[in-house]
Amino acid sequence: MIRVGMGYDVHKLVEGRDLWLGGIKINHSLGLLGHSDADVLIHAICDAILGAANMRDIGYHFPDTSEATLNMDSKIILKKTVELISNKGYHIGNIDATVCAERPKINPHVSEMTKCMAEVMGIDEELISIKATTTEKLGFTGREEGMSAYAVCLIEK
Amino acid sequence: MIRVGMGYDVHKLVEGRDLWLGGIKINHSLGLLGHSDADVLIHAICDAILGAANMRDIGYHFPDTSEATLNMDSKIILKKTVELISNKGYHIGNIDATVCAERPKINPHVSEMTKCMAEVMGIDEELISIKATTTEKLGFTGREEGMSAYAVCLIEK
Amino acid sequence: MIRVGMGYDVHKLVEGRDLWLGGIKINHSLGLLGHSDADVLIHAICDAILGAANMRDIGYHFPDTSEATLNMDSKIILKKTVELISNKGYHIGNIDATVCAERPKINPHVSEMTKCMAEVMGIDEELISIKATTTEKLGFTGREEGMSAYAVCLIEK
Ligand SMILES: [Zn+2]
Ligand SMILES: [Zn+2]
Ligand SMILES: [Zn+2]
Repeated sequence: MIRVGMGYDVHKLVEGRDLWLGGIKINHSLGLLGHSDADVLIHAICDAILGAANMRDIGYHFPDTSEATLNMDSKIILKKTVELISNKGYHIGNIDATVCAERPKINPHVSEMTKCMAEVMGIDEELISIKATTTEKLGFTGREEGMSAYAVCLIEK
Repeated sequence: MIRVGMGYDVHKLVEGRDLWLGGIKINHSLGLLGHSDADVLIHAICDAILGAANMRDIGYHFPDTSEATLNMDSKIILKKTVELISNKGYHIGNIDATVCAERPKINPHVSEMTKCMAEVMGIDEELISIKATTTEKLGFTGREEGMSAYAVCLIEK
Repeated sequence: MIRVGMGYDVHKLVEGRDLWLGGIKINHSLGLLGHSDADVLIHAICDAILGAANMRDIGYHFPDTSEATLNMDSKIILKKTVELISNKGYHIGNIDATVCAERPKINPHVSEMTKCMAEVMGIDEELISIKATTTEKLGFTGREEGMSAYAVCLIEK
Protein backbone atom coordinates (compact mmCIF):
# COMPACT_ATOMS: atom_id res chain seq x y z
CA MET A 1 0.00 0.00 0.00
CA ILE A 2 1.34 3.35 -1.09
CA ARG A 3 0.17 6.87 -0.20
CA VAL A 4 1.13 10.38 -1.28
CA GLY A 5 1.41 13.55 0.82
CA MET A 6 2.29 17.20 0.27
CA GLY A 7 3.46 20.02 2.49
CA TYR A 8 3.75 23.79 2.16
CA ASP A 9 5.25 26.11 4.72
CA VAL A 10 6.16 29.80 4.97
CA HIS A 11 8.23 31.83 7.42
CA LYS A 12 9.21 35.48 7.59
CA LEU A 13 12.81 36.59 7.09
CA VAL A 14 14.02 38.96 9.79
CA GLU A 15 17.25 40.34 11.17
CA GLY A 16 18.74 38.90 14.34
CA ARG A 17 17.74 35.27 13.76
CA ASP A 18 19.87 32.34 12.60
CA LEU A 19 18.89 30.75 9.29
CA TRP A 20 18.11 27.05 9.74
CA LEU A 21 17.26 25.08 6.61
CA GLY A 22 17.13 21.33 6.19
CA GLY A 23 18.55 20.86 9.65
CA ILE A 24 21.69 22.93 9.17
CA LYS A 25 22.64 26.52 9.98
CA ILE A 26 23.42 28.64 6.93
CA ASN A 27 25.36 31.89 6.99
CA HIS A 28 23.06 34.75 5.94
CA SER A 29 22.24 38.29 7.01
CA LEU A 30 18.63 37.28 7.75
CA GLY A 31 17.01 34.35 9.54
CA LEU A 32 13.55 32.77 9.58
CA LEU A 33 11.13 33.88 12.28
CA GLY A 34 9.02 31.36 14.16
CA HIS A 35 8.12 29.78 17.45
CA SER A 36 10.55 26.91 16.78
CA ASP A 37 13.78 27.37 14.78
CA ALA A 38 11.47 28.04 11.81
CA ASP A 39 13.18 25.51 9.50
CA VAL A 40 10.73 25.96 6.64
CA LEU A 41 12.10 23.02 4.66
CA ILE A 42 11.81 20.49 7.48
CA HIS A 43 8.33 21.78 8.31
CA ALA A 44 7.11 21.27 4.73
CA ILE A 45 8.60 17.77 4.68
CA CYS A 46 6.99 16.88 8.03
CA ASP A 47 3.61 18.05 6.77
CA ALA A 48 4.01 15.95 3.62
CA ILE A 49 4.83 12.87 5.69
CA LEU A 50 2.00 13.42 8.19
CA GLY A 51 -0.46 14.18 5.40
CA ALA A 52 0.46 11.01 3.53
CA ALA A 53 -0.29 9.00 6.67
CA ASN A 54 -3.47 10.98 7.40
CA MET A 55 -2.10 12.06 10.75
CA ARG A 56 -3.00 15.78 10.72
CA ASP A 57 -0.20 18.38 10.45
CA ILE A 58 2.74 19.75 12.45
CA GLY A 59 0.59 22.56 13.85
CA TYR A 60 -1.54 19.81 15.42
CA HIS A 61 1.31 17.75 16.86
CA PHE A 62 3.73 20.57 17.68
CA PRO A 63 1.56 23.63 18.43
CA ASP A 64 3.29 27.00 18.18
CA THR A 65 1.58 28.05 21.39
CA SER A 66 3.35 25.40 23.48
CA GLU A 67 6.34 26.04 25.77
CA ALA A 68 7.72 22.66 24.69
CA THR A 69 8.18 23.77 21.08
CA LEU A 70 9.64 27.23 21.82
CA ASN A 71 12.92 27.55 19.88
CA MET A 72 12.69 23.81 19.21
CA ASP A 73 15.24 22.28 16.85
CA SER A 74 13.09 21.14 13.92
CA LYS A 75 15.19 18.00 13.61
CA ILE A 76 13.37 16.82 16.74
CA ILE A 77 10.05 17.46 14.98
CA LEU A 78 11.32 15.51 11.95
CA LYS A 79 12.46 12.58 14.08
CA LYS A 80 9.12 12.46 15.92
CA THR A 81 7.21 12.69 12.64
CA VAL A 82 8.97 9.60 11.31
CA GLU A 83 8.21 7.83 14.60
CA LEU A 84 4.53 8.79 14.34
CA ILE A 85 4.12 7.18 10.92
CA SER A 86 6.27 4.19 11.92
CA ASN A 87 3.86 3.53 14.77
CA LYS A 88 1.13 3.30 12.14
CA GLY A 89 3.23 0.83 10.13
CA TYR A 90 4.46 3.21 7.40
CA HIS A 91 7.95 3.87 6.12
CA ILE A 92 9.21 6.60 3.77
CA GLY A 93 9.13 5.77 0.04
CA ASN A 94 10.80 8.98 -1.11
CA ILE A 95 10.69 12.74 -0.51
CA ASP A 96 11.12 15.60 -2.97
CA ALA A 97 11.13 19.23 -1.84
CA THR A 98 11.72 22.72 -3.21
CA VAL A 99 12.87 25.76 -1.24
CA CYS A 100 11.81 29.16 -2.64
CA ALA A 101 14.32 31.83 -1.68
CA GLU A 102 15.80 34.77 -3.50
CA ARG A 103 18.94 34.58 -1.37
CA PRO A 104 21.18 32.96 -0.20
CA LYS A 105 22.16 30.30 -2.75
CA ILE A 106 20.67 27.05 -1.48
CA ASN A 107 22.27 24.62 -3.93
CA PRO A 108 25.75 24.60 -2.32
CA HIS A 109 24.13 23.34 0.89
CA VAL A 110 21.93 20.60 -0.57
CA SER A 111 24.33 17.70 0.07
CA GLU A 112 24.82 18.65 3.70
CA MET A 113 21.06 19.12 4.27
CA THR A 114 20.28 15.77 2.68
CA LYS A 115 22.91 14.00 4.78
CA CYS A 116 21.64 15.68 7.95
CA MET A 117 17.97 14.89 7.37
CA ALA A 118 18.63 11.31 6.22
CA GLU A 119 20.52 10.69 9.46
CA VAL A 120 17.76 12.18 11.61
CA MET A 121 15.12 10.13 9.78
CA GLY A 122 17.20 6.97 9.73
CA ILE A 123 16.77 6.53 5.99
CA ASP A 124 19.01 6.37 2.93
CA GLU A 125 20.08 9.73 1.46
CA GLU A 126 18.87 8.49 -1.92
CA LEU A 127 15.30 8.85 -0.60
CA ILE A 128 15.55 12.63 -0.03
CA SER A 129 15.74 15.16 -2.85
CA ILE A 130 16.08 18.90 -2.16
CA LYS A 131 15.76 21.50 -4.89
CA ALA A 132 15.82 25.29 -4.85
CA THR A 133 14.40 28.10 -6.92
CA THR A 134 14.12 31.85 -6.74
CA THR A 135 10.78 33.38 -7.63
CA GLU A 136 12.49 35.90 -9.93
CA LYS A 137 12.04 38.77 -7.43
CA LEU A 138 8.24 38.27 -7.54
CA GLY A 139 5.96 37.80 -4.55
CA PHE A 140 6.95 37.74 -0.88
CA THR A 141 9.81 35.31 -1.45
CA GLY A 142 11.05 37.46 -4.34
CA ARG A 143 11.00 40.56 -2.14
CA GLU A 144 12.91 38.57 0.53
CA GLU A 145 10.13 39.11 3.06
CA GLY A 146 10.14 35.37 3.67
CA MET A 147 10.92 31.89 2.39
CA SER A 148 8.57 29.09 1.46
CA ALA A 149 9.02 25.38 0.87
CA TYR A 150 7.03 22.69 -0.91
CA ALA A 151 7.40 18.97 -0.36
CA VAL A 152 5.83 15.77 -1.65
CA CYS A 153 6.43 12.26 -0.40
CA LEU A 154 5.39 8.69 -0.85
CA ILE A 155 5.00 6.41 2.14
CA GLU A 156 4.51 2.67 2.08
CA LYS A 157 3.13 0.01 4.38
CA MET B 1 -1.55 1.05 -12.28
CA ILE B 2 -1.10 4.10 -10.12
CA ARG B 3 -1.10 7.79 -11.07
CA VAL B 4 -0.46 11.05 -9.21
CA GLY B 5 -2.26 14.40 -9.55
CA MET B 6 -2.02 17.86 -8.01
CA GLY B 7 -4.39 20.78 -7.68
CA TYR B 8 -4.04 24.43 -6.74
CA ASP B 9 -6.89 26.89 -6.36
CA VAL B 10 -7.37 30.47 -5.18
CA HIS B 11 -10.43 32.56 -4.30
CA LYS B 12 -10.87 36.09 -3.02
CA LEU B 13 -12.18 36.78 0.47
CA VAL B 14 -15.00 39.31 0.54
CA GLU B 15 -17.73 40.53 2.83
CA GLY B 16 -21.27 39.33 2.35
CA ARG B 17 -20.48 35.76 1.26
CA ASP B 18 -20.70 32.52 3.23
CA LEU B 19 -17.42 30.67 3.78
CA TRP B 20 -17.61 27.14 2.39
CA LEU B 21 -14.59 24.91 2.90
CA GLY B 22 -14.35 21.16 2.46
CA GLY B 23 -18.10 20.97 1.91
CA ILE B 24 -19.13 22.65 5.15
CA LYS B 25 -20.12 26.20 6.08
CA ILE B 26 -17.76 27.87 8.54
CA ASN B 27 -18.60 30.89 10.65
CA HIS B 28 -16.41 33.81 9.59
CA SER B 29 -16.73 37.52 8.86
CA LEU B 30 -15.61 36.96 5.25
CA GLY B 31 -16.50 34.44 2.58
CA LEU B 32 -14.89 33.21 -0.65
CA LEU B 33 -15.97 34.86 -3.89
CA GLY B 34 -16.68 32.80 -6.98
CA HIS B 35 -19.16 31.70 -9.59
CA SER B 36 -19.93 28.55 -7.58
CA ASP B 37 -19.81 28.47 -3.76
CA ALA B 38 -16.04 29.00 -4.20
CA ASP B 39 -15.03 26.07 -1.98
CA VAL B 40 -11.30 26.42 -2.62
CA LEU B 41 -10.43 23.15 -0.89
CA ILE B 42 -12.86 21.00 -2.87
CA HIS B 43 -11.77 22.70 -6.09
CA ALA B 44 -8.08 21.92 -5.45
CA ILE B 45 -8.97 18.31 -4.65
CA CYS B 46 -11.10 17.96 -7.81
CA ASP B 47 -8.25 19.31 -9.94
CA ALA B 48 -5.84 16.84 -8.34
CA ILE B 49 -8.21 13.95 -9.10
CA LEU B 50 -8.93 15.05 -12.67
CA GLY B 51 -5.25 15.73 -13.31
CA ALA B 52 -4.25 12.29 -12.05
CA ALA B 53 -6.70 10.74 -14.52
CA ASN B 54 -5.62 13.09 -17.33
CA MET B 55 -9.17 14.40 -17.62
CA ARG B 56 -8.49 18.18 -17.86
CA ASP B 57 -9.54 20.45 -14.96
CA ILE B 58 -12.65 21.73 -13.22
CA GLY B 59 -12.66 24.88 -15.36
CA TYR B 60 -13.08 22.56 -18.34
CA HIS B 61 -15.87 20.40 -16.88
CA PHE B 62 -17.63 23.06 -14.80
CA PRO B 63 -17.05 26.38 -16.60
CA ASP B 64 -17.51 29.50 -14.49
CA THR B 65 -19.39 31.09 -17.37
CA SER B 66 -22.21 28.55 -17.27
CA GLU B 67 -25.64 29.17 -15.71
CA ALA B 68 -25.59 25.56 -14.49
CA THR B 69 -22.63 26.19 -12.18
CA LEU B 70 -23.82 29.55 -10.79
CA ASN B 71 -23.74 29.32 -6.98
CA MET B 72 -23.27 25.57 -7.38
CA ASP B 73 -22.58 23.53 -4.26
CA SER B 74 -19.03 22.27 -4.83
CA LYS B 75 -19.98 18.93 -3.32
CA ILE B 76 -21.83 18.30 -6.60
CA ILE B 77 -18.61 19.05 -8.48
CA LEU B 78 -16.73 16.65 -6.19
CA LYS B 79 -19.29 13.90 -6.68
CA LYS B 80 -19.22 14.30 -10.47
CA THR B 81 -15.41 14.35 -10.47
CA VAL B 82 -15.29 10.96 -8.75
CA GLU B 83 -17.87 9.67 -11.26
CA LEU B 84 -15.75 10.94 -14.16
CA ILE B 85 -12.68 9.00 -13.08
CA SER B 86 -14.77 5.95 -12.12
CA ASN B 87 -16.05 5.86 -15.69
CA LYS B 88 -12.43 5.60 -16.79
CA GLY B 89 -11.86 2.72 -14.34
CA TYR B 90 -10.02 4.63 -11.62
CA HIS B 91 -10.61 4.81 -7.89
CA ILE B 92 -9.05 7.10 -5.27
CA GLY B 93 -5.84 5.86 -3.63
CA ASN B 94 -5.52 8.73 -1.18
CA ILE B 95 -5.79 12.52 -1.03
CA ASP B 96 -3.73 15.03 0.94
CA ALA B 97 -4.52 18.74 0.93
CA THR B 98 -3.45 21.98 2.60
CA VAL B 99 -5.58 25.10 3.06
CA CYS B 100 -3.66 28.40 3.31
CA ALA B 101 -5.61 30.91 5.39
CA GLU B 102 -4.61 33.48 7.97
CA ARG B 103 -8.04 33.19 9.60
CA PRO B 104 -10.26 31.53 10.72
CA LYS B 105 -8.66 28.51 12.43
CA ILE B 106 -9.19 25.57 10.06
CA ASN B 107 -8.00 22.75 12.29
CA PRO B 108 -11.12 22.57 14.49
CA HIS B 109 -13.16 21.84 11.34
CA VAL B 110 -10.94 19.18 9.78
CA SER B 111 -12.85 16.17 11.12
CA GLU B 112 -16.18 17.47 9.88
CA MET B 113 -14.77 18.38 6.46
CA THR B 114 -13.17 14.95 6.09
CA LYS B 115 -16.39 13.21 7.06
CA CYS B 116 -18.42 15.34 4.67
CA MET B 117 -16.12 14.85 1.68
CA ALA B 118 -15.65 11.13 2.29
CA GLU B 119 -19.42 10.69 2.26
CA VAL B 120 -19.82 12.70 -0.95
CA MET B 121 -17.04 10.72 -2.64
CA GLY B 122 -18.20 7.37 -1.28
CA ILE B 123 -14.77 6.54 0.15
CA ASP B 124 -13.26 5.82 3.53
CA GLU B 125 -12.35 8.86 5.66
CA GLU B 126 -8.88 7.37 6.09
CA LEU B 127 -8.23 8.22 2.43
CA ILE B 128 -8.64 12.00 2.90
CA SER B 129 -6.17 14.16 4.80
CA ILE B 130 -6.73 17.89 5.29
CA LYS B 131 -4.08 20.18 6.70
CA ALA B 132 -3.94 23.93 7.29
CA THR B 133 -1.31 26.61 7.48
CA THR B 134 -1.13 30.37 7.69
CA THR B 135 1.39 32.10 5.48
CA GLU B 136 2.66 34.14 8.44
CA LYS B 137 0.89 37.31 7.23
CA LEU B 138 2.85 37.18 3.95
CA GLY B 139 1.37 37.30 0.46
CA PHE B 140 -2.29 37.57 -0.47
CA THR B 141 -3.35 34.82 1.91
CA GLY B 142 -1.36 36.48 4.69
CA ARG B 143 -3.09 39.80 3.99
CA GLU B 144 -6.46 37.96 4.05
CA GLU B 145 -7.22 39.06 0.51
CA GLY B 146 -7.95 35.43 -0.32
CA MET B 147 -7.41 31.77 0.49
CA SER B 148 -5.58 29.12 -1.48
CA ALA B 149 -5.49 25.34 -1.34
CA TYR B 150 -3.10 22.68 -2.57
CA ALA B 151 -3.95 19.02 -3.06
CA VAL B 152 -2.21 15.87 -4.22
CA CYS B 153 -3.79 12.49 -4.82
CA LEU B 154 -3.06 9.00 -6.00
CA ILE B 155 -5.57 7.15 -8.12
CA GLU B 156 -5.47 3.48 -9.04
CA LYS B 157 -6.89 1.26 -11.73
CA MET C 1 9.90 0.80 -7.47
CA ILE C 2 7.97 4.03 -7.71
CA ARG C 3 9.00 7.57 -6.72
CA VAL C 4 7.24 10.95 -6.63
CA GLY C 5 8.59 14.39 -7.52
CA MET C 6 7.33 17.97 -7.57
CA GLY C 7 8.38 21.13 -9.35
CA TYR C 8 7.57 24.82 -8.99
CA ASP C 9 8.80 27.56 -11.28
CA VAL C 10 8.20 31.29 -11.75
CA HIS C 11 9.07 33.75 -14.52
CA LYS C 12 8.38 37.44 -15.02
CA LEU C 13 6.04 38.65 -17.75
CA VAL C 14 7.53 41.44 -19.85
CA GLU C 15 6.98 43.17 -23.16
CA GLY C 16 9.10 42.27 -26.15
CA ARG C 17 9.46 38.55 -25.42
CA ASP C 18 7.69 35.59 -27.03
CA LEU C 19 5.47 33.51 -24.76
CA TRP C 20 6.60 29.87 -24.74
CA LEU C 21 4.53 27.44 -22.70
CA GLY C 22 4.60 23.65 -22.82
CA GLY C 23 6.93 23.76 -25.80
CA ILE C 24 4.72 25.90 -28.04
CA LYS C 25 4.61 29.62 -28.84
CA ILE C 26 1.38 31.32 -27.77
CA ASN C 27 0.15 34.65 -29.09
CA HIS C 28 0.11 37.19 -26.27
CA SER C 29 1.09 40.81 -25.67
CA LEU C 30 3.64 39.73 -23.02
CA GLY C 31 6.25 37.00 -22.83
CA LEU C 32 8.19 35.26 -20.06
CA LEU C 33 11.61 36.62 -19.16
CA GLY C 34 14.53 34.28 -18.55
CA HIS C 35 17.96 33.15 -19.57
CA SER C 36 16.46 30.34 -21.67
CA ASP C 37 13.08 30.68 -23.44
CA ALA C 38 11.61 30.79 -19.90
CA ASP C 39 9.01 28.06 -20.53
CA VAL C 40 7.73 27.98 -16.96
CA LEU C 41 5.63 24.84 -17.53
CA ILE C 42 8.45 22.73 -18.97
CA HIS C 43 10.77 23.94 -16.20
CA ALA C 44 8.34 22.88 -13.46
CA ILE C 45 7.91 19.49 -15.13
CA CYS C 46 11.68 19.00 -15.47
CA ASP C 47 12.17 19.80 -11.80
CA ALA C 48 9.45 17.29 -10.85
CA ILE C 49 11.15 14.59 -12.93
CA LEU C 50 14.66 15.34 -11.65
CA GLY C 51 13.40 15.58 -8.06
CA ALA C 52 11.63 12.22 -8.31
CA ALA C 53 14.91 10.64 -9.43
CA ASN C 54 16.93 12.54 -6.79
CA MET C 55 19.02 14.15 -9.51
CA ARG C 56 19.10 17.78 -8.27
CA ASP C 57 17.21 20.46 -10.28
CA ILE C 58 17.34 22.23 -13.63
CA GLY C 59 19.36 25.10 -12.13
CA TYR C 60 22.03 22.50 -11.37
CA HIS C 61 22.03 20.81 -14.79
CA PHE C 62 21.25 23.84 -16.93
CA PRO C 63 22.69 26.87 -15.10
CA ASP C 64 21.27 30.24 -16.07
CA THR C 65 24.79 31.66 -16.05
CA SER C 66 25.96 29.44 -18.89
CA GLU C 67 26.38 30.55 -22.53
CA ALA C 68 25.09 27.12 -23.59
CA THR C 69 21.65 27.72 -22.09
CA LEU C 70 21.21 31.34 -23.30
CA ASN C 71 17.88 31.54 -25.14
CA MET C 72 17.78 27.74 -25.08
CA ASP C 73 14.63 26.02 -26.30
CA SER C 74 13.29 24.37 -23.14
CA LYS C 75 12.29 21.32 -25.18
CA ILE C 76 16.01 20.50 -25.26
CA ILE C 77 16.08 20.72 -21.46
CA LEU C 78 13.03 18.43 -21.29
CA LYS C 79 14.59 15.89 -23.66
CA LYS C 80 17.85 15.86 -21.67
CA THR C 81 15.96 15.54 -18.40
CA VAL C 82 14.25 12.38 -19.62
CA GLU C 83 17.63 11.05 -20.79
CA LEU C 84 19.15 11.77 -17.37
CA ILE C 85 16.57 9.67 -15.52
CA SER C 86 16.64 6.97 -18.23
CA ASN C 87 20.36 6.58 -17.60
CA LYS C 88 19.50 5.85 -13.99
CA GLY C 89 16.93 3.22 -15.09
CA TYR C 90 13.75 5.27 -14.56
CA HIS C 91 10.83 5.93 -16.87
CA ILE C 92 7.91 8.34 -16.50
CA GLY C 93 4.83 6.99 -14.70
CA ASN C 94 2.68 10.09 -15.22
CA ILE C 95 2.89 13.87 -14.99
CA ASP C 96 0.29 16.38 -13.82
CA ALA C 97 0.89 20.12 -13.96
CA THR C 98 -0.93 23.41 -13.39
CA VAL C 99 -0.11 26.75 -15.01
CA CYS C 100 -1.11 29.86 -13.01
CA ALA C 101 -1.80 32.76 -15.33
CA GLU C 102 -4.38 35.50 -15.38
CA ARG C 103 -4.11 35.76 -19.16
CA PRO C 104 -4.06 34.45 -21.84
CA LYS C 105 -6.48 31.51 -21.74
CA ILE C 106 -4.31 28.39 -21.47
CA ASN C 107 -6.99 25.73 -21.92
CA PRO C 108 -7.36 26.12 -25.72
CA HIS C 109 -3.65 25.25 -26.05
CA VAL C 110 -3.54 22.22 -23.76
CA SER C 111 -3.89 19.57 -26.48
CA GLU C 112 -1.10 21.06 -28.56
CA MET C 113 1.21 21.41 -25.53
CA THR C 114 0.56 17.83 -24.47
CA LYS C 115 1.23 16.51 -27.98
CA CYS C 116 4.41 18.56 -28.23
CA MET C 117 5.84 17.52 -24.86
CA ALA C 118 4.88 13.84 -25.29
CA GLU C 119 6.77 13.78 -28.59
CA VAL C 120 9.85 15.43 -27.07
CA MET C 121 9.81 13.00 -24.14
CA GLY C 122 9.03 9.97 -26.28
CA ILE C 123 6.07 8.97 -24.13
CA ASP C 124 2.34 8.50 -24.59
CA GLU C 125 0.20 11.67 -24.41
CA GLU C 126 -1.98 9.90 -21.84
CA LEU C 127 0.90 10.26 -19.37
CA ILE C 128 0.89 14.09 -19.44
CA SER C 129 -1.88 16.21 -17.92
CA ILE C 130 -1.84 20.00 -18.13
CA LYS C 131 -4.26 22.17 -16.20
CA ALA C 132 -4.64 25.92 -15.84
CA THR C 133 -5.98 28.34 -13.28
CA THR C 134 -6.05 32.05 -12.69
CA THR C 135 -5.31 33.27 -9.19
CA GLU C 136 -8.39 35.50 -9.25
CA LYS C 137 -6.31 38.68 -9.74
CA LEU C 138 -4.46 37.97 -6.46
CA GLY C 139 -0.69 37.82 -6.00
CA PHE C 140 1.96 38.35 -8.66
CA THR C 141 0.30 36.00 -11.14
CA GLY C 142 -3.01 37.78 -10.54
CA ARG C 143 -1.40 41.15 -11.22
CA GLU C 144 0.14 39.67 -14.39
CA GLU C 145 3.66 40.41 -13.18
CA GLY C 146 4.54 36.81 -13.90
CA MET C 147 3.40 33.23 -14.38
CA SER C 148 4.04 30.21 -12.21
CA ALA C 149 3.67 26.48 -12.74
CA TYR C 150 3.41 23.47 -10.46
CA ALA C 151 4.06 19.88 -11.48
CA VAL C 152 4.05 16.46 -9.87
CA CYS C 153 5.16 13.20 -11.41
CA LEU C 154 5.64 9.55 -10.70
CA ILE C 155 8.64 7.71 -12.09
CA GLU C 156 9.19 3.97 -12.07
CA LYS C 157 12.12 1.61 -12.28
ZN1 LIG D 1 6.93 26.29 9.86
ZN1 LIG E 1 -12.17 27.49 -7.39
ZN1 LIG F 1 12.35 28.56 -15.22
